[in-house]
Amino acid sequence: MSWLPSLITATPEEGYDLAIKLSRMAVKKAQPDDEARGRMRPDYANNADSLTVASGVVATNFQTVAAANNYWR
Amino acid sequence: MSWLPSLITATPEEGYDLAIKLSRMAVKKAQPDDEARGRMRPDYANNADSLTVASGVVATNFQTVAAANNYWR
Amino acid sequence: MSWLPSLITATPEEGYDLAIKLSRMAVKKAQPDDEARGRMRPDYANNADSLTVASGVVATNFQTVAAANNYWR
Amino acid sequence: MSWLPSLITATPEEGYDLAIKLSRMAVKKAQPDDEARGRMRPDYANNADSLTVASGVVATNFQTVAAANNYWR
Amino acid sequence: MSWLPSLITATPEEGYDLAIKLSRMAVKKAQPDDEARGRMRPDYANNADSLTVASGVVATNFQTVAAANNYWR
Amino acid sequence: MSWLPSLITATPEEGYDLAIKLSRMAVKKAQPDDEARGRMRPDYANNADSLTVASGVVATNFQTVAAANNYWR
Repeated sequence: MSWLPSLITATPEEGYDLAIKLSRMAVKKAQPDDEARGRMRPDYANNADSLTVASGVVATNFQTVAAANNYWR
Repeated sequence: MSWLPSLITATPEEGYDLAIKLSRMAVKKAQPDDEARGRMRPDYANNADSLTVASGVVATNFQTVAAANNYWR
Repeated sequence: MSWLPSLITATPEEGYDLAIKLSRMAVKKAQPDDEARGRMRPDYANNADSLTVASGVVATNFQTVAAANNYWR
Repeated sequence: MSWLPSLITATPEEGYDLAIKLSRMAVKKAQPDDEARGRMRPDYANNADSLTVASGVVATNFQTVAAANNYWR
Repeated sequence: MSWLPSLITATPEEGYDLAIKLSRMAVKKAQPDDEARGRMRPDYANNADSLTVASGVVATNFQTVAAANNYWR
Repeated sequence: MSWLPSLITATPEEGYDLAIKLSRMAVKKAQPDDEARGRMRPDYANNADSLTVASGVVATNFQTVAAANNYWR
């Protein structure tokens, strides 16, 4: 089964989680080695700027998911 | 209850506050440890570039919230 | 009174000023101490890269304000 | 007279020039001292990364101007 | 044959892969030497911030592809 | 003749090339000296992060060109 069968979600919160998934997938595709990603995690998760930039990627993906869902209006 | 029941807000100001909430949630999901986030705060809050980049994330999320609310026209 | 009663402005120039206000407000909400923000200002205002990144935040907010005003067409 | 009377331009090229003007105005408003901006210029104009980030700001503003002009279709 | 015959894809997942392709192509056009790109890869693929910024580029391209496909609704 | 007579292109690939042209033009306008730009090129073209950020600028401009062309649907 596809990891991304649809951009449609039942709720805004599920849409936000999908935006996080989309953001992580690009990292996973560029660095498929789970261990290599794990080694980077402590530095990343304890650096405010790293977390802020990552939040910006989620924000961009959330724009896409929210538009796809017509903003769950 | 969901932390994000809807993107609809009564006013632009509430929409802006929701954009801030969306920006912080991605950080919280990547670093769930409250103490770890607290440790980063002083450096972050006293660094102009960190604050500017964070403002850019809020701006991206505010685009989404404003569009969802048809710009409160 | 709200600091953001509306996204509608009479002119593009007022819309641009509102975009600057939106950009600064996120900084103010993350660092509410006026003195702390004042201490960062000289370094920030004399660093071309800091100013460029800040201009990018204004550009993102101006997209929102311009769309809200149907581009003042 | 306003520095930004309208987002409408006769041609795409004039629209691009307006996007550059919008990008520079945010810098000018944050650092109004002409001499201070002049001092930063040589470093900025000889740093590829600075120029790339600045090009990104122009790209964001050009999105706004192009949409305002219905892409000069 | 063109490397980009269309922005239309059968599924969201194929659209995401196209967004990755679009993101890589700009790098390839700026640095056409395969060996030079290969030399940069280990550092890049083991740096969390590099991967995050690259994920942001994919997110921007995915916005374009998703809009082109009317979000596969 | 204008360097940007139109945002309309016959194909997505030509649209992508136009996005690259738009991205480079902002650099050229900020640093018109061909030699100065040439001096920066080797460092830039061998730095993965520089190339990634530049790819992000192309992505933003490609959004504009793709929208102008109604995504070549």
